[in-house]
Amino acid sequence: MATIKDIATRLGVSVSTVSKGLNGASDISEELRQMVLDTAVEMGYATKKSKKKENRKLAVFIENMEYETEDQFGYDIVLGFKQNAFRHNWDVTVIPVTPAFQLTEKYDTYMLKNGFCGAFLVGFALHDEWMQQLSHTTMPTVLFDNYIEKNPNVCYVGTDNYEGIDAAVDHLYTLGHKKIAFLNGSLHSMVSEQRQEAFYNSMKAHGLTVDEKLTAYGYYVADSAKYHVPTFLGAGATAIICGNDLIASGVIAECKLRGFRVPEDISVVGFDDLPLSASLEPPLTTVRQERNELGKCAYVVLNSLVHHIPFCRTQIRARLIERESTARCPAVPEIKPLA
Amino acid sequence: MATIKDIATRLGVSVSTVSKGLNGASDISEELRQMVLDTAVEMGYATKKSKKKENRKLAVFIENMEYETEDQFGYDIVLGFKQNAFRHNWDVTVIPVTPAFQLTEKYDTYMLKNGFCGAFLVGFALHDEWMQQLSHTTMPTVLFDNYIEKNPNVCYVGTDNYEGIDAAVDHLYTLGHKKIAFLNGSLHSMVSEQRQEAFYNSMKAHGLTVDEKLTAYGYYVADSAKYHVPTFLGAGATAIICGNDLIASGVIAECKLRGFRVPEDISVVGFDDLPLSASLEPPLTTVRQERNELGKCAYVVLNSLVHHIPFCRTQIRARLIERESTARCPAVPEIKPLA
Repeated sequence: MATIKDIATRLGVSVSTVSKGLNGASDISEELRQMVLDTAVEMGYATKKSKKKENRKLAVFIENMEYETEDQFGYDIVLGFKQNAFRHNWDVTVIPVTPAFQLTEKYDTYMLKNGFCGAFLVGFALHDEWMQQLSHTTMPTVLFDNYIEKNPNVCYVGTDNYEGIDAAVDHLYTLGHKKIAFLNGSLHSMVSEQRQEAFYNSMKAHGLTVDEKLTAYGYYVADSAKYHVPTFLGAGATAIICGNDLIASGVIAECKLRGFRVPEDISVVGFDDLPLSASLEPPLTTVRQERNELGKCAYVVLNSLVHHIPFCRTQIRARLIERESTARCPAVPEIKPLA
Repeated sequence: MATIKDIATRLGVSVSTVSKGLNGASDISEELRQMVLDTAVEMGYATKKSKKKENRKLAVFIENMEYETEDQFGYDIVLGFKQNAFRHNWDVTVIPVTPAFQLTEKYDTYMLKNGFCGAFLVGFALHDEWMQQLSHTTMPTVLFDNYIEKNPNVCYVGTDNYEGIDAAVDHLYTLGHKKIAFLNGSLHSMVSEQRQEAFYNSMKAHGLTVDEKLTAYGYYVADSAKYHVPTFLGAGATAIICGNDLIASGVIAECKLRGFRVPEDISVVGFDDLPLSASLEPPLTTVRQERNELGKCAYVVLNSLVHHIPFCRTQIRARLIERESTARCPAVPEIKPLA
């Protein structure tokens, strides 16, 4: 476990500065204090105070998502949550779960038995047992990327998919693209539906027509590309927006396989900005989900639910990261209208 | 200005308990501490600590909305904001503004000159000068009931109008109403648009048809009723949902004037749950906006923006308050289909 000295060394500041930051002393700046606290959490430091505290326990339940190393999608989400919770002396336990585990005990029972005051659920699927129970849970619960109707104890937290997709369309539009394809993630996902609607709205707002042959739902995996990219290319797409970066990596591979250069012949945009995206060949232009901020946001909302502020829906901004997988639309031979 | 003793008397607890609550001592419960802090703010108590603090200033700018007495819409919003800000030693200044005032100085300039770190804007109109400037402001800003695209420094906060209107439709549906009218507030308002969309969606979800003669945009004033209620009654409405409680008060008056009893002949539902709504004749069934919680939510979001968490959209739950202005749909003579 990290000591105060370890934190000081990592940040290049004195031990007393770290100590001040951890203890909320007023003679260091707010920025520095924040950095000290964030680093302490990242390095696994635990104060005696937080060790002692009882009844200040929050859970992060995580399913279908990797979070243990920095290159995984869930890592920064969990880290951001813990960093913010640490400030208020909450003790956070991260618990990976499976569908089978959810059948062993009811959500509320599990929470009560283990003394948790609230939970953040990440990566759950609609048909999961615990998801079904969220309509009636009495436990303050924040849910990543899914919305539960009418229960004032549950809040949805996610990225603004509308602005995210709009930023992607707008970027391609300014590069001269008109035949823009959209290879979305799985059907029956709230996030996919928001992105689909966003794509239609944004294309319309840019005066562009959506060609039905150029949109498809796949799954949130690279393999989706095989089934849809050939159709897109055949229908004359010059750019493909993808439901996430994994799909985009598959799309790039599939385009290359068929002799199309990225970005010279076809531009590709992802969604998420996974750590791997910057090292794809070419590095991927993508809509970034600010994962550390999502985690922090989830904590703020959960803490509010615990204090009876009935947040129900919270989104944070998406941000387009421009890299090398997008370029100006290749010149298309102009077709003269018939005289 | 209130003293610790005043707070103790009001709450019926000892002076030392109040003192513990104000100073964050760990041997009183979180609930009690919260009550002490909330009451301290409500009574205008200021600690020496918060008097001394510099550079911890937030502004609440308020326009087109009364907030000075408990019976006014803005009162609890401002109070909730101040109560939560107080916990973190922010100094809050409430500044009523006019369109003319906004022309005297740019928003960012005013904020910087006066040392504010962020602001909560309540009641602003779309065409206001400062609203135009929000697309590019660098100041953390929370905006009640309006959304600013793409600027990560600005977040929208409001009530979930979709669930609110759905709760109203659902309530009337279970009372047997089918010919439900909707007298919305002003056109070109984001909130009105959300409620209009919600009304169509909810009617459809309940298997009910929207009769175009039974929907209209008015203004958010009682007078709107005069122009639309006669049409609604003529077209056979048995219930009217209103864009806010003021409209509802006008609707009730207009119905009575035309010899219709509320709720025996026609049911009326409001939106907001203004303090006046409970003392209307009959007391109004309405969709409550949790104003104290909205204020608290706005603070939480503003504090997050100050700490660079790019919240963009936040809604809290609406709640239907059942009173006496709604009742079972009067029996309609059944029309037999032609043989």
